[in-house]
Amino acid sequence: MAEPLPDLIEEFVTDSMGDDPAVILTALSSQDTVYIASLLESLPVERRLIIWEGVPRDKKLSVLVEMRSDPREILIDATAHHEWASIFSDIDAEDLLELLDSLPTKLVDLAYQTLDSQERKYFREATQFPDSQVGHWVNHELLVLPANAKVREGLRLLRRELPQHCDSIYLVNRSGQFSALVKVNKLFAAQEHTSLVQLAEESAAILDATEEVSTASLQVQRSGLSALPVVDENSKLIGRLDITSASELINEFYERQVMASAGMDEDEDLFSPVAKSARNRALWLGINLLTAFLASWFIGLFEATLQQVVALAVLMPVVASMGGIAGSQTLTLIVRGLALGQVTSANMRALMVKELKVGGVNGVIWALVIGVVAYFWFTDVLLGVVICLAILFNIVAAALAGVFVPVILDKLKIDPALSGSVILTTVTDIVGFVAFLGLGSLFLL
Amino acid sequence: MAEPLPDLIEEFVTDSMGDDPAVILTALSSQDTVYIASLLESLPVERRLIIWEGVPRDKKLSVLVEMRSDPREILIDATAHHEWASIFSDIDAEDLLELLDSLPTKLVDLAYQTLDSQERKYFREATQFPDSQVGHWVNHELLVLPANAKVREGLRLLRRELPQHCDSIYLVNRSGQFSALVKVNKLFAAQEHTSLVQLAEESAAILDATEEVSTASLQVQRSGLSALPVVDENSKLIGRLDITSASELINEFYERQVMASAGMDEDEDLFSPVAKSARNRALWLGINLLTAFLASWFIGLFEATLQQVVALAVLMPVVASMGGIAGSQTLTLIVRGLALGQVTSANMRALMVKELKVGGVNGVIWALVIGVVAYFWFTDVLLGVVICLAILFNIVAAALAGVFVPVILDKLKIDPALSGSVILTTVTDIVGFVAFLGLGSLFLL
Repeated sequence: MAEPLPDLIEEFVTDSMGDDPAVILTALSSQDTVYIASLLESLPVERRLIIWEGVPRDKKLSVLVEMRSDPREILIDATAHHEWASIFSDIDAEDLLELLDSLPTKLVDLAYQTLDSQERKYFREATQFPDSQVGHWVNHELLVLPANAKVREGLRLLRRELPQHCDSIYLVNRSGQFSALVKVNKLFAAQEHTSLVQLAEESAAILDATEEVSTASLQVQRSGLSALPVVDENSKLIGRLDITSASELINEFYERQVMASAGMDEDEDLFSPVAKSARNRALWLGINLLTAFLASWFIGLFEATLQQVVALAVLMPVVASMGGIAGSQTLTLIVRGLALGQVTSANMRALMVKELKVGGVNGVIWALVIGVVAYFWFTDVLLGVVICLAILFNIVAAALAGVFVPVILDKLKIDPALSGSVILTTVTDIVGFVAFLGLGSLFLL
Repeated sequence: MAEPLPDLIEEFVTDSMGDDPAVILTALSSQDTVYIASLLESLPVERRLIIWEGVPRDKKLSVLVEMRSDPREILIDATAHHEWASIFSDIDAEDLLELLDSLPTKLVDLAYQTLDSQERKYFREATQFPDSQVGHWVNHELLVLPANAKVREGLRLLRRELPQHCDSIYLVNRSGQFSALVKVNKLFAAQEHTSLVQLAEESAAILDATEEVSTASLQVQRSGLSALPVVDENSKLIGRLDITSASELINEFYERQVMASAGMDEDEDLFSPVAKSARNRALWLGINLLTAFLASWFIGLFEATLQQVVALAVLMPVVASMGGIAGSQTLTLIVRGLALGQVTSANMRALMVKELKVGGVNGVIWALVIGVVAYFWFTDVLLGVVICLAILFNIVAAALAGVFVPVILDKLKIDPALSGSVILTTVTDIVGFVAFLGLGSLFLL
């Protein structure tokens, strides 16, 4: 049984274990590669390299495959050249595809030479599809029989060593086109001479190789089958997407969304080298700086007003942040809806109306609350009225932006989970400051 | 084959389909319940209720089970009382558990009466565990044999109608305690009189009923098996967690994280009634308002300074937002690490050091950039120095807060994905404003 990850980290993070590869090897040899991968990701780079030395040679490939690319690349760089031949000794097309972006070209070539001709063919086929398409991720361990096969042949097939998650036999015609799917367990109760076609599932989904990975993965997850067949544009069966791959691809999809909201990607290493991490994050800080200066520039237009009514400066953050929060609630809901395919041009209008109403209700309530607080704080009725109107205006504008920003980004094929919140807060900051300071200039000077 | 969801939405969102339940019924009868559920979630409430009327009676239960609770509750409220007997006619313990929080007590009772005594027992057992524990979500469709059974008996078992995702037979001793797991496909190549125990997997994981749902689900996903056995505190086999449930539970976990970042939950309805939605979101706006007023109060301490150096008011948002962005990057990384079990007390210190270094590097770079821009904008060297120091200070403080806030929340058993960002931005706002205005008061007056 695998130890829980935190205990494992505790054991390896300090050097109580020592730096002796032999000791580490013994300690790791009983561990699952998934846990070793996660352990390595959790260690500071120096320790990570020491522990990596001690990972059993025959586990190194699977450990690399299980890791995120950023931490993985650090290990790849640190691995001695002469080790690769043995690490790659068991590699197949799927492993190489998984490692493709992390390996230098030389090592890709070396690994490719190790593949047999069948695996090379799979590899070449898969690389014809971008990694956003299901064709890139197909698994080739299939149970396939000709369309006219009988139960007897099916049972004979099952006596071999079966691949993981094989609950179906796929039937193909003479040109290799997919024709039907038969659940394995239908065979046990059937007569030996029955045609497999008679046992076929009628409504099983078939995936196109060009289908988007996240949609296809959800289909597998919902199918109740362990895998769905994948066909090319000529209906030729090229492989299957199994439920383990599907689940991992869905996890990645969600993780990308979570990380994107802070301008990072899902491969970000917990312990990436400082220079690399600083560089990765600098872009996002730079973009944010431009939008912040833009907001400042708008505030600058009202310098004269601010000088006379300093209370406006004090209350500015309230106006901006209420708009930002209200807008990000709408944005988050719409981004999820877009990701699930539930937001379309058909229901956009109704969504807009509903979000405007919600914004209106919350706008009125919080505008009044804030107006009253501001009045008591600065004993100035007009200031209360000004902030009240500015808040109402900004929350309603936030609802509009919360719907339009992600929908427009999606239309432009820009990931709304990544850039949506920056654009949205820029809008709500500027609208908030201009409304508040503009109304202030009108009423308070 | 199911139509893609957007087309389906397009077809049903307008009343081109008419309001005739019979027409809708015909159109929906070929659709998968997963798609019907997603379609209903995508429709404005009025249309949703009309289409719900037309959903084939025998699909209504599965459609409800597939839906998120908020949109589901709207349909439950709108369903005529006399319909429930037929909707519940096929209900089992798992369905009822899924609907439990959405059904009024009366309907829970009605559904419970429909269960046979075995299902009632399952239901009662499951409700002993909170829905955060795997015991709440077990599936009872198992292939079980006594520990001394032979391959012959295993094969006989397989001839029955098999449940979904059954790739293993579980062996139990006389007191019902789990003893071993045998992969079904091992049976085909084995002799009829071989003991099943001899074919058992050695390293298959066993789940405790009290284990946390997301950890257990990841274990299932990584096991390469279609399900893992679940045992109670006496090692008695009480069921299994299959890969479909595991994947759905992981999806929910991620979706909760995404929605939590905007103070919403994963059951939020795209088209919830305005009053309900406004109420749900008001709490988050209210909490945010308190933190915004707190920040304003700190700014208010420097009113005299602001009056004299209005440029400080203009540049305030830049200082606050750079700290907020830098902090949220660290926060997002740490929250993911906590969720994956990769951040522990053992590697906290090293993480802290690394984040401080990254903060230091980006702090210095952006402090200089912003200082220079501010100098040229306001032609004031001291102002440039003041904002430079304030940015540096705030970005470093943001790194500290980005690590400590989620770790402390996690220790306090508060979901850092939910409250982390509010607390973090409160910290970076206040630190930023105080540093900037405080330094401004020292140097610029």
